[in-house]
Amino acid sequence: MIKVYGVHGSPFVRKVYIMLGLKGISFEMVQQRPFANDPEYKMINPLGKVPTLVDGELTLCDSKVICRYIENAYPEPRLYPEDPAERAKADWLEEFSGTSVTELATGIFFQRFMRPRVFKQEPDEKFISEIITNRLPPLLAYLEGHIPQEGFVFGDFTMTDLAIVSPFINASYAGYEVDPESWPRLAGLINRVKANPEVAAVLAEEARMFGAR
Amino acid sequence: MIKVYGVHGSPFVRKVYIMLGLKGISFEMVQQRPFANDPEYKMINPLGKVPTLVDGELTLCDSKVICRYIENAYPEPRLYPEDPAERAKADWLEEFSGTSVTELATGIFFQRFMRPRVFKQEPDEKFISEIITNRLPPLLAYLEGHIPQEGFVFGDFTMTDLAIVSPFINASYAGYEVDPESWPRLAGLINRVKANPEVAAVLAEEARMFGAR
Repeated sequence: MIKVYGVHGSPFVRKVYIMLGLKGISFEMVQQRPFANDPEYKMINPLGKVPTLVDGELTLCDSKVICRYIENAYPEPRLYPEDPAERAKADWLEEFSGTSVTELATGIFFQRFMRPRVFKQEPDEKFISEIITNRLPPLLAYLEGHIPQEGFVFGDFTMTDLAIVSPFINASYAGYEVDPESWPRLAGLINRVKANPEVAAVLAEEARMFGAR
Repeated sequence: MIKVYGVHGSPFVRKVYIMLGLKGISFEMVQQRPFANDPEYKMINPLGKVPTLVDGELTLCDSKVICRYIENAYPEPRLYPEDPAERAKADWLEEFSGTSVTELATGIFFQRFMRPRVFKQEPDEKFISEIITNRLPPLLAYLEGHIPQEGFVFGDFTMTDLAIVSPFINASYAGYEVDPESWPRLAGLINRVKANPEVAAVLAEEARMFGAR
């Protein structure tokens, strides 16, 4: 059986849990915190990040790589576009969302949510304000240009929609919501993705976990 | 005609130039320095990085995404494996090499090569020593475990080999060579990749450019 190392609440692990659910693939969740400096885990994931997927002989790190593998090895139902140009656009939007956008969105999440709860420290509000006021808006504007007014980026729901929305779920735990006046398409997409039953089920698990702290 | 925005010497742009050469695809090189804070360029690449590929209506950023698109849109000759598990392994090794390994290798390159030449500053030797002594060795050991004694990662030469080697070409400009006693497979792969005629041709262009400064 496929094993996924990770924890609920990571914007990257979330994508893999939801994708496996949407494909109807059973898997074992192995609890693994990121950056735990665990030498045994670093044998399978040299950076100590999450998620890691193990499928038989194959060990894969990085959620983009894992999700693309799941799509290729377990094609139905399709969760990425197949046309080479659309597929490349999907790859780029997932890369952009998983690096620069996630860095900023999880910066807010870390400062306002994790830091007080886990480290018993005050958030660095100057740093948060720099993200919200200066660094995030150009990236939101870029995403806005790739999102339709209704529906999803490639018509039906795909992993691209989830990849775009996932970092904002973490930011929302820290009280940051994308302003629907300034970025109506992105704000609408976030709501549509959250309404997907499989997404909603995983978010309910996250809520249970965070509530139980 | 395909346009590639970038400059010789970038470990990422290098991959795209070489791949297009290997596929026999003509393209226009548009000179673009990374992080130039050029508002016009940021319209097509929101992070201001290089390379960007423009193919008709399609604009793509990120070398992994670009190289995967070239492979899918222009399949011959094959430069990535096709089996889903091998393909995923290729994706992961390209991701790992293009992020963590490149960050460290270009750290050496920036400090010892770019900083004195471009910024007329001394390199930070303490930072370089931390990279070479502590941070790089575990990543080199991980790569070593994925490289065969002879030939290439998937038998014949693929983009995975070039993705692994490209950051070390930059490090070698700064006088850092992977120690063949400690990591003989990686050191051997670097030599075999550099001997590929298309790779050698692009490296000759880089040498001309750096020599002309």
